[in-house]
Amino acid sequence: MTDLWGGIEAGGTHCVCAIGTGPQDIRAEIDIATTTPDETIAEVIRFFLSNEKVEAVGIGSFGPVDLTPTSARYGWITSTPKPGWKDTDIVGKIGRALEVPVAFETDVNAAALAEHIWGSAEGIDNFVYLTVGTGIGGGTMTNGRLVHGLVHPEMGHLRVPHDFNNDDFPGSCPYHGDCLEGLASGPAIEQRWGSPAGSLAEHNLVWELEAVYLGLAVANFVCTLSPERVIMGGGVMKQPSLLPLVRRKVQKLLNGYIQEPAVLNRIDSYVVSPRLGNRAGVLGAIAMAQMI
Amino acid sequence: MTDLWGGIEAGGTHCVCAIGTGPQDIRAEIDIATTTPDETIAEVIRFFLSNEKVEAVGIGSFGPVDLTPTSARYGWITSTPKPGWKDTDIVGKIGRALEVPVAFETDVNAAALAEHIWGSAEGIDNFVYLTVGTGIGGGTMTNGRLVHGLVHPEMGHLRVPHDFNNDDFPGSCPYHGDCLEGLASGPAIEQRWGSPAGSLAEHNLVWELEAVYLGLAVANFVCTLSPERVIMGGGVMKQPSLLPLVRRKVQKLLNGYIQEPAVLNRIDSYVVSPRLGNRAGVLGAIAMAQMI
Repeated sequence: MTDLWGGIEAGGTHCVCAIGTGPQDIRAEIDIATTTPDETIAEVIRFFLSNEKVEAVGIGSFGPVDLTPTSARYGWITSTPKPGWKDTDIVGKIGRALEVPVAFETDVNAAALAEHIWGSAEGIDNFVYLTVGTGIGGGTMTNGRLVHGLVHPEMGHLRVPHDFNNDDFPGSCPYHGDCLEGLASGPAIEQRWGSPAGSLAEHNLVWELEAVYLGLAVANFVCTLSPERVIMGGGVMKQPSLLPLVRRKVQKLLNGYIQEPAVLNRIDSYVVSPRLGNRAGVLGAIAMAQMI
Repeated sequence: MTDLWGGIEAGGTHCVCAIGTGPQDIRAEIDIATTTPDETIAEVIRFFLSNEKVEAVGIGSFGPVDLTPTSARYGWITSTPKPGWKDTDIVGKIGRALEVPVAFETDVNAAALAEHIWGSAEGIDNFVYLTVGTGIGGGTMTNGRLVHGLVHPEMGHLRVPHDFNNDDFPGSCPYHGDCLEGLASGPAIEQRWGSPAGSLAEHNLVWELEAVYLGLAVANFVCTLSPERVIMGGGVMKQPSLLPLVRRKVQKLLNGYIQEPAVLNRIDSYVVSPRLGNRAGVLGAIAMAQMI
């Protein structure tokens, strides 16, 4: 009998749970709407208790979260602006109910880990994983290890030049106004243009402006981290014209300064989509459980 | 008899060489003007051949450099705009002449390493070292290891919002115009205000604007890397009013989003000066030689 592992991707709108051993072997899966902590966590627990037993569970969570094992608030979602979720001990509640060990990470680090093991960063020890959707978040691996640092990266809150000549939208971030997330997340697109991103596919200006901001962000990550690859996922990246526009913008911004074939001549394999798509998060959570 | 080690900090204007074992034990030291590669490297070799023999040499060099051990151009200064220095095999020339092993790093990574061993990042495994002078460069350590990635970080070339309301200087970077280095390096200050930074000590507007750009850069590094500390050195940082201004700007930009005492309440020990001052580079090069 194979040991089974549980993965939980706790996102701001959906909470995906799965049981299995990897991308080719998922035995059960559920997509729960993220409502209140009590309701959502109860549904997560019900899913695991009503399926085959797992050895351990991994949680990749929206944040900010406390990842410091020695901290009194380890395993908590901390200062999130999401109503009701501030100071939620997600690891404690789930671990006690399921009576299994729990691994904990940011949602984007979990996704980055899965892409490293099974996806677009297979064999690559230095890369950035960025997701552009309801929010913008990023995880990064350097020298083969995920980066936590003081807290964990909050790449969505990068400051990039606001293109005031073409964009008078003030930005939607409650903390920073026109930071990257405030200018380029799904809600920012919807507020600026008056329609959801998904309905704006034919409007080239929307995607050209989006590529300006995402291109600036990627160029900044290249200058700061020198990744060997940049993976861009999330709902907003589903617009097919966007990734090619971002690639061209990154090359234009770097302007030949980074004299590497990956950037100069092979940008299509340098800035890429996640091979695991939107399953990266929950698969990474399963991988984390296996690594406990 | 103690084994001795050689350190070379190859900077854009000066090349500092030292022989010893660490900050408390430097037996010989020289400061050479960086002129042509032939002339400068010949002087470096002369210094080491006319002093006590070293076991190995470390070089922390201005760049861009090739740090990939398997590359045909490993140990070269590659696409630098510095006249005469493009495609210089600095490791090969020095290693062959001195007949010792040579370790090679960026100047900023060498300085970061020294600060980690003997300086402001002692015991800290995730930090950023930024130098603001003739150019702007940064090195970073994550999980206790220096970051190289695809090439190496080029933090000076970060894009930050240009404060057009207060600053119509177009930027001095030949590649990017108003990137961080183009807006906030020593030459950018001199070109904008018409006098060298060192003569502008009494002009508050100069340092307030400088703090705007450096604060944006530090806030971006915090969002991207989540460092446990940020060390800021280099000639421009010698202005005593600047570091406190940068700290306040960083707090204002992050605006309480990073809920960590280090950022919220202890910013004076979060954004700091290098304890080793301008000797960090050459001391880091000595440490690299010891680690071969």
